[in-house]
Amino acid sequence: MLNFDHRGLLKTTLNRIAPVDEGWIAKARARQLQLTKPPGSLGRLEEIANRLAGIQRSMQLSVARARILVFAADHGVCCEGVSLYPQSVTAQMVANFLRGGAAINALANTAGAELRIVDVGICQDLPEQDGLIQKRIANGTKNFCSSAAMTEDQAVAAMEVGIEMADASKTSGCQLLGIGEMGIGNTTSASAITAALTGLEADAVVGRGAGADDAGLNRKIAVIRRALALHRLTAAAPLDILAKVGGFEIAAMSGVCLGAAANRQAVLVDGFIATAAAALAVQLQPATSGYLFASHRSTEPGQQPLLNMIGQRPILDLEMRLGEGTGAALAISIVRAAAAAFNGMATFESAGVSNTESQNVKQ
Amino acid sequence: MLNFDHRGLLKTTLNRIAPVDEGWIAKARARQLQLTKPPGSLGRLEEIANRLAGIQRSMQLSVARARILVFAADHGVCCEGVSLYPQSVTAQMVANFLRGGAAINALANTAGAELRIVDVGICQDLPEQDGLIQKRIANGTKNFCSSAAMTEDQAVAAMEVGIEMADASKTSGCQLLGIGEMGIGNTTSASAITAALTGLEADAVVGRGAGADDAGLNRKIAVIRRALALHRLTAAAPLDILAKVGGFEIAAMSGVCLGAAANRQAVLVDGFIATAAAALAVQLQPATSGYLFASHRSTEPGQQPLLNMIGQRPILDLEMRLGEGTGAALAISIVRAAAAAFNGMATFESAGVSNTESQNVKQ
Repeated sequence: MLNFDHRGLLKTTLNRIAPVDEGWIAKARARQLQLTKPPGSLGRLEEIANRLAGIQRSMQLSVARARILVFAADHGVCCEGVSLYPQSVTAQMVANFLRGGAAINALANTAGAELRIVDVGICQDLPEQDGLIQKRIANGTKNFCSSAAMTEDQAVAAMEVGIEMADASKTSGCQLLGIGEMGIGNTTSASAITAALTGLEADAVVGRGAGADDAGLNRKIAVIRRALALHRLTAAAPLDILAKVGGFEIAAMSGVCLGAAANRQAVLVDGFIATAAAALAVQLQPATSGYLFASHRSTEPGQQPLLNMIGQRPILDLEMRLGEGTGAALAISIVRAAAAAFNGMATFESAGVSNTESQNVKQ
Repeated sequence: MLNFDHRGLLKTTLNRIAPVDEGWIAKARARQLQLTKPPGSLGRLEEIANRLAGIQRSMQLSVARARILVFAADHGVCCEGVSLYPQSVTAQMVANFLRGGAAINALANTAGAELRIVDVGICQDLPEQDGLIQKRIANGTKNFCSSAAMTEDQAVAAMEVGIEMADASKTSGCQLLGIGEMGIGNTTSASAITAALTGLEADAVVGRGAGADDAGLNRKIAVIRRALALHRLTAAAPLDILAKVGGFEIAAMSGVCLGAAANRQAVLVDGFIATAAAALAVQLQPATSGYLFASHRSTEPGQQPLLNMIGQRPILDLEMRLGEGTGAALAISIVRAAAAAFNGMATFESAGVSNTESQNVKQ
């Protein structure tokens, strides 16, 4: 494994992560059987609530304050023509987030979730403005077809931005975190990470992203093959994968997963790109997986092998492929409902509802 | 077809139902392409918003006020031992609803939805109490293995309770309706309806309901076979199916579907039993289907053929099988998110975001 000696925050965070508490999960399971419903009839809501009990080590689940952290950065690989949209759209969309005009604004607002927009590496200088958290590591990554996307120090620094954002969210009283991203070209980076982590061929982990046609798809596959041939990547070295073919926003999201796990907080992971970040975090520290909820199934084919790695099933399947944290925002209401049922339902005993097998006989 | 001459409210309601407006759906589709996201990237949220535009005939969707209508009734077929729980649980759970201790209370509250509990035919006399809407047609249905569950007049009266509840919701300013039910034994009734509507064999439409074991499952199958042999049911006569093997709460939910469609309001249909009610409504008036949203996939195998009949795909799949309107309550937040994105997002033009193909060239 890598030597983290000089890496203060990342190292201490990794050391603080303990597995989700199985004892509390078992207690929660027992309580579910007492609530006024047929056993198991709330399906995955029960599974979500039980795991929250394990995360929060409590039978009174706290989910009132949710915050979605959206990280934006640019990708040098864009110059290979992998995206339908020009690179400048990253900055344009961040401006749209700050004015409240994007999908994530509408969905976070509907979910009653706070939204934080963090620049971890956009190419263009953005004017200082209300609501923009400036944590830029560099003006975008380098083209990973010809060199490493970033240095390992930069990868660690970007992860630590995420850890700091998770820590600040905990300090200010948030109980649920969501992660999302904006970065033209980042499905190509996430696909390269997926291939490196899983050993799958490039064509098995590449999708149409924001809407690539067949030619665009083939360009993405060729780009990933070149990157895999250039860099010597192995799943055992996730930080190296991140540095060689990752992105600053992906590194930051990995950091949020680790920071939240260390703080015993639940993280709603958005779609394909966020799942790649989560898989890197789990590869660094396997106990992280217990703190993660896969919010939705993306239409990108690379997501499923990553979900297998983090051991999570998506809560929603709405054929979405937007990113920005939109899936995480939607899943907040499901997680809140799961917690509300767990916290608020009467027991068979307290409600005077019969819980015995029917004694009805045929008339 | 049946003669509705003497059936005032049902007849006038059926005559008022017009198909969802395809012109408004087309306008909404065109607007989606202008919003700041890759085309189609909000997946089923776009489909939901577009249909709401067709239902409401508006490009400003209104979803602020949602109301869940839960109908409770008992089933004579319970004496055949088809349920794990004694029949008295119907009344006990209604008392639980009124005290706020059931899953639907927690989930409606989380969704910010109003809840109405309607007794359309519980066996036991319930004390008059706050929040209970008393519209009892009879003290439960008759055992449909030996006679018709109800008369056709009773079926119409129960449907009209649902229509009245839909009309009252419209009058008081609700924009979204959800339907749910409570009735020990009602998965058996819904399975019989499904077999009659679809022509499928009993064993293909029967599930474990609240948790039947193999012996219980076989009892349900045998009961449905006896009922189908006794009554001469045809899909062309949905009111006859309802009267012969239905339930009062199922009839009332069918009525809500028709009333809401006549009022151009969207209805979130809960799980298997609510879907059976919706399918009866669609069979009576096919244009009703455009107003219905299937909120979630039930674990009951009989639901899918009914979904095929009403032409809807479930929004959620959380392995739930509780009823009470719990799936409808969960789907409200998804529908609201779909509407919020549609109403609130900036366009490429207004936000100054590039919407052209990338002009990036290889460096």
